[in-house]
Amino acid sequence: MLPAAFIETLLDHIPADRAFTDPVDCYAYAYDNSRKIFPPECVIFPLTTDEVVQVIRLCMRFNLPVTPRGRGTGTAGGSLPEQGGIALSLERMTQVRSVDAANRVMIVEPGVLNEAVQAAAKPHGFFWPPDPSSAGYSSVGGNLATSAGGPHAVKYGTTRDHVLGVTAVTGTGEIIQTGCYTTKGVVGYDLTRLLIGSEGTLAVITEATLKLTPLPAAKGGLTAHYRDPASCAQAIVAIMQASRGPSALEFLDAGSLDLIRSKHPEMLPADSSAMLMIEVDGSEHEIAETVTNLLAACQNPGLLHAAATQNLDDLWQARKQLSPLLRDIAPKKINEDIVVPVDKIPVLLAGLSRLSQQYALANVNFGHAGNGNIHVNLLVDPDIDSERAEKCLNDIFDLVISLNGTLSGEHGIGSEKRAYIEKEISTATLAIMKGIKQVFDPNHILNPGKLFP
Amino acid sequence: MLPAAFIETLLDHIPADRAFTDPVDCYAYAYDNSRKIFPPECVIFPLTTDEVVQVIRLCMRFNLPVTPRGRGTGTAGGSLPEQGGIALSLERMTQVRSVDAANRVMIVEPGVLNEAVQAAAKPHGFFWPPDPSSAGYSSVGGNLATSAGGPHAVKYGTTRDHVLGVTAVTGTGEIIQTGCYTTKGVVGYDLTRLLIGSEGTLAVITEATLKLTPLPAAKGGLTAHYRDPASCAQAIVAIMQASRGPSALEFLDAGSLDLIRSKHPEMLPADSSAMLMIEVDGSEHEIAETVTNLLAACQNPGLLHAAATQNLDDLWQARKQLSPLLRDIAPKKINEDIVVPVDKIPVLLAGLSRLSQQYALANVNFGHAGNGNIHVNLLVDPDIDSERAEKCLNDIFDLVISLNGTLSGEHGIGSEKRAYIEKEISTATLAIMKGIKQVFDPNHILNPGKLFP
Ligand SMILES: Cc1cc2nc3c(=O)[nH]c(=O)nc-3n(C[C@H](O)[C@H](O)[C@H](O)COP(=O)(O)OP(=O)(O)OC[C@H]3O[C@@H](n4cnc5c(N)ncnc54)[C@H](O)[C@@H]3O)c2cc1C
Ligand SMILES: Cc1cc2nc3c(=O)[nH]c(=O)nc-3n(C[C@H](O)[C@H](O)[C@H](O)COP(=O)(O)OP(=O)(O)OC[C@H]3O[C@@H](n4cnc5c(N)ncnc54)[C@H](O)[C@@H]3O)c2cc1C
Repeated sequence: MLPAAFIETLLDHIPADRAFTDPVDCYAYAYDNSRKIFPPECVIFPLTTDEVVQVIRLCMRFNLPVTPRGRGTGTAGGSLPEQGGIALSLERMTQVRSVDAANRVMIVEPGVLNEAVQAAAKPHGFFWPPDPSSAGYSSVGGNLATSAGGPHAVKYGTTRDHVLGVTAVTGTGEIIQTGCYTTKGVVGYDLTRLLIGSEGTLAVITEATLKLTPLPAAKGGLTAHYRDPASCAQAIVAIMQASRGPSALEFLDAGSLDLIRSKHPEMLPADSSAMLMIEVDGSEHEIAETVTNLLAACQNPGLLHAAATQNLDDLWQARKQLSPLLRDIAPKKINEDIVVPVDKIPVLLAGLSRLSQQYALANVNFGHAGNGNIHVNLLVDPDIDSERAEKCLNDIFDLVISLNGTLSGEHGIGSEKRAYIEKEISTATLAIMKGIKQVFDPNHILNPGKLFP
Repeated sequence: MLPAAFIETLLDHIPADRAFTDPVDCYAYAYDNSRKIFPPECVIFPLTTDEVVQVIRLCMRFNLPVTPRGRGTGTAGGSLPEQGGIALSLERMTQVRSVDAANRVMIVEPGVLNEAVQAAAKPHGFFWPPDPSSAGYSSVGGNLATSAGGPHAVKYGTTRDHVLGVTAVTGTGEIIQTGCYTTKGVVGYDLTRLLIGSEGTLAVITEATLKLTPLPAAKGGLTAHYRDPASCAQAIVAIMQASRGPSALEFLDAGSLDLIRSKHPEMLPADSSAMLMIEVDGSEHEIAETVTNLLAACQNPGLLHAAATQNLDDLWQARKQLSPLLRDIAPKKINEDIVVPVDKIPVLLAGLSRLSQQYALANVNFGHAGNGNIHVNLLVDPDIDSERAEKCLNDIFDLVISLNGTLSGEHGIGSEKRAYIEKEISTATLAIMKGIKQVFDPNHILNPGKLFP
């Protein structure tokens, strides 16, 4: 229960219509895409950096946990107030402060949706490269806090490559400004990228200076279908050798294809058991040249057919539906986003298939193959198969680490993966990270318990 | 004086031929491109990460400062052992550990020269984009510690955009591993980029995992000459609006051109008083297209002539000589590398010219205009004109900050600019940086006194 004095003082700073305490209202802020449920005791909607400062100072005084929240689409449980306290929802800070076309810079508040960033950039001939599939309903603050990526990361990188600086409020209520407004700058430590991907454990981002990129002149696409995952994996490696690569390279395994077939019976050839969706962008001339080169790279004995496609939109739509479709058949599926070096994808896919048999657990795999980032979906009910699922997951992570990979390419650690972080990060390195946490948030009120084992 | 016990224990770990204590030997490690001189009491040349650990532990025990040093080409005094103690020279750790063409990754020791990285990458069709003019004699460790950039940063970014991870030894002698081997990864805080640009104040980098980029198929160039700096600055802004930009965009003012003329009388047209050197890269088709677009962007009433050039090599050579040539005429010139948003370059250049008159101090300006990164050279003897030079510099920095710029684009703070850092970084932000320093180096033995005011 929140102390009455907290609520009272809070209302000196934040009007009642921006501070929910009714459990029913709070419940809407209790979950995210991890499917865990932890209701906050209070949801606060600040509108300014100063209001964030006030809230954090108050939480310090009353020693209450504060969990920053964008739009709650995160997959790692990052925005869940596990230890109760305050959900600090940035969703009402939705101003695009400025679009500076001459310098390719946009300043936004954290609650602006990714899609709204794109909409504001487009009339000026720009886009902001981070493109999570959740673009329509995830916030730029959440994108920064997770260093979100998406299909185009293979060409453009992830969020950390496209932010010049932020304004943020630390766990002691101090306002810090990181980075600069220019494309170059080396004054002091790079706090910008330290905050990007820090999952709300170091500071609350209240403003972001985004670096924009010119929209490509045109886009083209091709698809390639394979007899088996091994030959598809081999093609991925070949494609990533090309000097001009794809702007997206998505892999879909047999299970994923079946799922799409169940909704779109006509969309895919019947004989395909592994598929690549390839996008290229640039001038018409570049596209033509690149498509030719990548079609050549697709060739191997396992190829069934590969062809340039005029319009990939329908396929992208179908690709986007995969995650929700999987939820329909396995509501509590375990959803991972492991990464391995590109040339280890064949070994990874073989290993996943072996583990699936060993544990008698179906897995469906698809993802951003150009970055070696594969979404592994274990179609289990972890409540029932818990021990088996845990063992299988453990083996998958061990496999990934043995291949010089990483446990998460874009979803982060949050609460979901913290039990595994020590497989990847050494004790000494983790100690430094904990030390940094202590500097930003000495009272451990900012998203406590997250990211660390 | 170093304690005898220190030397004695040191020699248990490091053979005598890799530990200089003779002042004459040490003197060769007393300076860098800042022209300040601070002799170390001992120069140690480790060959392995473990040796670095031993040295740092020993320095902890004896409370001796350790200053990491690459090749001492830094401009900010970063590698100078201002407080005496140990110069930890990484120059003998020169192994290229692996070149993994399939994954576009190279692992190197810190003493490998930038040029040697390029040489190892080239046979595989790759390069490593950071390209300081000092490539032939600066180390990759130094490049990381300063987040070095160069002419190609306008297209490819700087060092921080091209490193996947590092191994480093903290100020307590702990080995940490940061980042990962893959192009995506969000497990834990981004310590890689925290170390990049940290100027040896947080940890000694003993290994780096570099991300390689495919070599462009071809390069083309153009030059444009202007009647006055204002119209040249206007062209820079126009060029940076193009959706496909240059791979390099260098600006040279009248003073710079005169300097080149003094060595190469035939190279430049007599009437030019401001020049752009523009490089474009890609396929032949792209180059042709881009050159046409950029030539159009060069047009304005102040343009004297602009033309595509088959071979820019001679010009690049001349451009590279500028810094040394300036040293000849003003051995103690003050050399800054300020940055402003591209569309503020016209105001910056006008301001620099005004300040030059006001203080009766000649300045010569050139640099990476595409990033707004201008090297300002005050041709003074700071020993004689000290007060005037200081005031002028102060006004230049105030101008830069008022234009939303940054004090350093690539050289860093070191000892040279620490008096000014508070113009740019707020007290609260600086406090966080100091806290981070404390986490990595609680005894303040790693490059003490650097980077902070
Ligand atoms: C259908 C679907 C598809 C998805 N596809 C992708 C994808 O392709 N790529 C990808 O990377 N992710 C994807 N995601 C995951 C998710 O959308 C991203 O992680 C997104 O960046 C989260 O944004 P959010 O606003 O919902 O943040 P939340 O979920 O609310 O929060 C995420 C984390 O960020 C912190 N946080 C949020 N805002 C701030 C702030 N202002 N300051 C400090 N910390 C803050 C929270 O505390 C939490 O730790 C997908 C999710 C769904 C449901
Ligand atoms: C003629 C000339 C041209 C130049 N042109 C450019 C340019 O275009 N762009 C540019 O960015 N710079 C340029 N510089 C500056 C300089 O070359 C760069 O800063 C370079 O990155 C320094 O490398 P170094 O090996 O000489 O490092 P040093 O000068 O030895 O050290 C630089 C800093 O890095 C630290 N350091 C070095 N190695 C390590 C390590 N392994 N671990 C931790 N800390 C370490 C040192 O403590 C110091 O703070 C130029 C210099 C000269 C002389």
